[in-house]
Amino acid sequence: MPRLVMKFGGTSVADLDRIRSAAEKVRREVERGYDVAVVVSARAGETDELAGRVRATSTLYDAREYDTVVAAGEQVASGLMALTLQEIGVPARSWQGWQIPIHTTGAHGAARILEIETQEMVRKFGEGLHAVVSGFQGIGPDGRISTLGRGGSDTSAVALAAALGAERCDIYTDVDGIYTADPRIERRARKLDKIAYEEMLELASLGARVLQTRAVELAMRYKVRLQVLSSFGDQPGTLVCDEEEIVEQNVVSGVAHVRDEAKITLLKVPDRPGVAAAIFGPLADHGVNVDMIVQNIGADGMTDMTFSCPTDEVARARAALEAAQGALRYRELVVDDEVAKISVVGIGMRSHSGVARTMFSALAAEGINIKVITTSEIKVSVLIDRKYMELAVQALHQTFGLADD
Amino acid sequence: MPRLVMKFGGTSVADLDRIRSAAEKVRREVERGYDVAVVVSARAGETDELAGRVRATSTLYDAREYDTVVAAGEQVASGLMALTLQEIGVPARSWQGWQIPIHTTGAHGAARILEIETQEMVRKFGEGLHAVVSGFQGIGPDGRISTLGRGGSDTSAVALAAALGAERCDIYTDVDGIYTADPRIERRARKLDKIAYEEMLELASLGARVLQTRAVELAMRYKVRLQVLSSFGDQPGTLVCDEEEIVEQNVVSGVAHVRDEAKITLLKVPDRPGVAAAIFGPLADHGVNVDMIVQNIGADGMTDMTFSCPTDEVARARAALEAAQGALRYRELVVDDEVAKISVVGIGMRSHSGVARTMFSALAAEGINIKVITTSEIKVSVLIDRKYMELAVQALHQTFGLADD
Repeated sequence: MPRLVMKFGGTSVADLDRIRSAAEKVRREVERGYDVAVVVSARAGETDELAGRVRATSTLYDAREYDTVVAAGEQVASGLMALTLQEIGVPARSWQGWQIPIHTTGAHGAARILEIETQEMVRKFGEGLHAVVSGFQGIGPDGRISTLGRGGSDTSAVALAAALGAERCDIYTDVDGIYTADPRIERRARKLDKIAYEEMLELASLGARVLQTRAVELAMRYKVRLQVLSSFGDQPGTLVCDEEEIVEQNVVSGVAHVRDEAKITLLKVPDRPGVAAAIFGPLADHGVNVDMIVQNIGADGMTDMTFSCPTDEVARARAALEAAQGALRYRELVVDDEVAKISVVGIGMRSHSGVARTMFSALAAEGINIKVITTSEIKVSVLIDRKYMELAVQALHQTFGLADD
Repeated sequence: MPRLVMKFGGTSVADLDRIRSAAEKVRREVERGYDVAVVVSARAGETDELAGRVRATSTLYDAREYDTVVAAGEQVASGLMALTLQEIGVPARSWQGWQIPIHTTGAHGAARILEIETQEMVRKFGEGLHAVVSGFQGIGPDGRISTLGRGGSDTSAVALAAALGAERCDIYTDVDGIYTADPRIERRARKLDKIAYEEMLELASLGARVLQTRAVELAMRYKVRLQVLSSFGDQPGTLVCDEEEIVEQNVVSGVAHVRDEAKITLLKVPDRPGVAAAIFGPLADHGVNVDMIVQNIGADGMTDMTFSCPTDEVARARAALEAAQGALRYRELVVDDEVAKISVVGIGMRSHSGVARTMFSALAAEGINIKVITTSEIKVSVLIDRKYMELAVQALHQTFGLADD
């Protein structure tokens, strides 16, 4: 029988009614003839509550004990889901990470899945027993419970789908798919039927909270077809798949934005080998997540270095750079924390030149000044004044013909 | 190094302050040179909450999933206790039932411990690492989490103490020991320094909620010295031990009472072989917990059958017996739900005759009528009118010289 992995997040198992509603979706797929493995997160808020109790106990906590404590949330959810499935006539049992087992690295709290032994689960499929798997967890080489880091249940689902050779991995969430833009900003935004792994990866790293980046990477590597769809409706969602499967490719698939970016520029840094490392080393040490980086070479042996980071990391960035002033000897540190990042993403860009030019022209036509530009093979990102963010998203959505009809 | 098992119940791990206070007790024993295995229950109320969620999901629930869900409570408590111990400088790690492993029968929800493999834990003791063990749980022959039934953490602690050859098993609870009578009724009640296993067993089955009957049985079988003491003070408690260890034995060690008993009599039942089975079969089927049973043989081929049960089971008992009237053909069903049970317990009784006579005389001197009598080798129990219960406890406490000085 074909196999299907269905993953339900914390809001989809928040209470018994929602678990019941998720279970009904599972039953429908079972009736379609699938052997189903359901992957569940802890109910919304549970992991935070448990993690809070760990932190209240110990500041520099032992990550192995942290994992033991927080993994309890998924354990409860898996048992309740299995019981609910049984109640509506779907034979099912729960599986904890250590029971399957899902072998992970020993990096407790941020483990990576190494191998999933599916033999026993497959044997139980043969007996008509569907599976409910605790997401987010596995067993480390030390024989102890490990967790994959926050949001790891998506990764659990994709890895299990790969190990089971599942026909598809359905990720049920509180949005009903991937849109050409944020519908709160562009009301003509359109749900995509399909999107390529590479595009989804760019969108995930651009702040689309729908899927974990690691889950998308894994899906791409093992060619797991991933569907994002809503727990609360019955519409099909968006299929994240190989680009070969997408017949009608747009040049641009979507416009993404990140509202709370800050632009930091070091003016007149003496340019010498190793200067970039001297700048970004201290930033990393201070836990600053640097996003875009642009360097302009001046003629006078000086360089200007610009980067962006989340606005709430500006204070740390400033502290790191001021402490390093003695070594860097920059002339001035300029912070602009009123910027936003706008990106256009599309695998079609690879074969169509001129996307960047079209984008820049559209922004210029609206009188929007571009402060920083970076590009990748399938993405162009710019920093602009935050006050123009909505306008920019709408203009680009229009320019690249992304709206309905 | 000598080993010690220390068990903390739900109220002792109810919040982080209490866990901290329990951890301090552990540290004290570690400083005395013990390798310590701490056994923890789920925090107070947690198991009920989880069990409630299971029952809300499914009426006839799969006990394997029930076990998976409720065992999460101890898992969290064990992780938090291990972290707290680390915080105060005691190297420790948590162990779940499946990690040790604690092998149990497959009777999920009411499993019995079959074997505890302590090799790995002992090896960790050798590395200076103390153990925190989730009570109440193990792993069944199906490789799934099993639980021992409510209150099973006491049993976990005793079984672990037996497997480790521990010098003692300390059960920390919300009372500070075993008393000669309930101090709320007899203010001169005295805490016993020592009590024999057999006496403790009788007291446990007589309604003393301090220790689980199964835990005491296990301690007796494996000669585990068990200490009951308070989580909230620093006094020594009561040692439950082999009678050989008790130098100065009292004839009677304590007076126990059960307030809410009912006495049910079937008058004039035609006496024939199998009549007792015909009466108590239906009662068992209706879930009535029959306690004392007395049968008087009449001269006329008729018998009167009397038994006692908790007052809140009277309605079920009546329904069962009225439904069986056709088969039993008793003349009358008489219920007295205003009785209490008073017992005197003591291993000294074995060698001292006359305990029953002394007891009956003392009650008669107070004008208390005895309605039913049963005896065992180390116990005499009577049913009396409930309104005399306090008076009877005080009179017997005095008569058998149990008060201080």
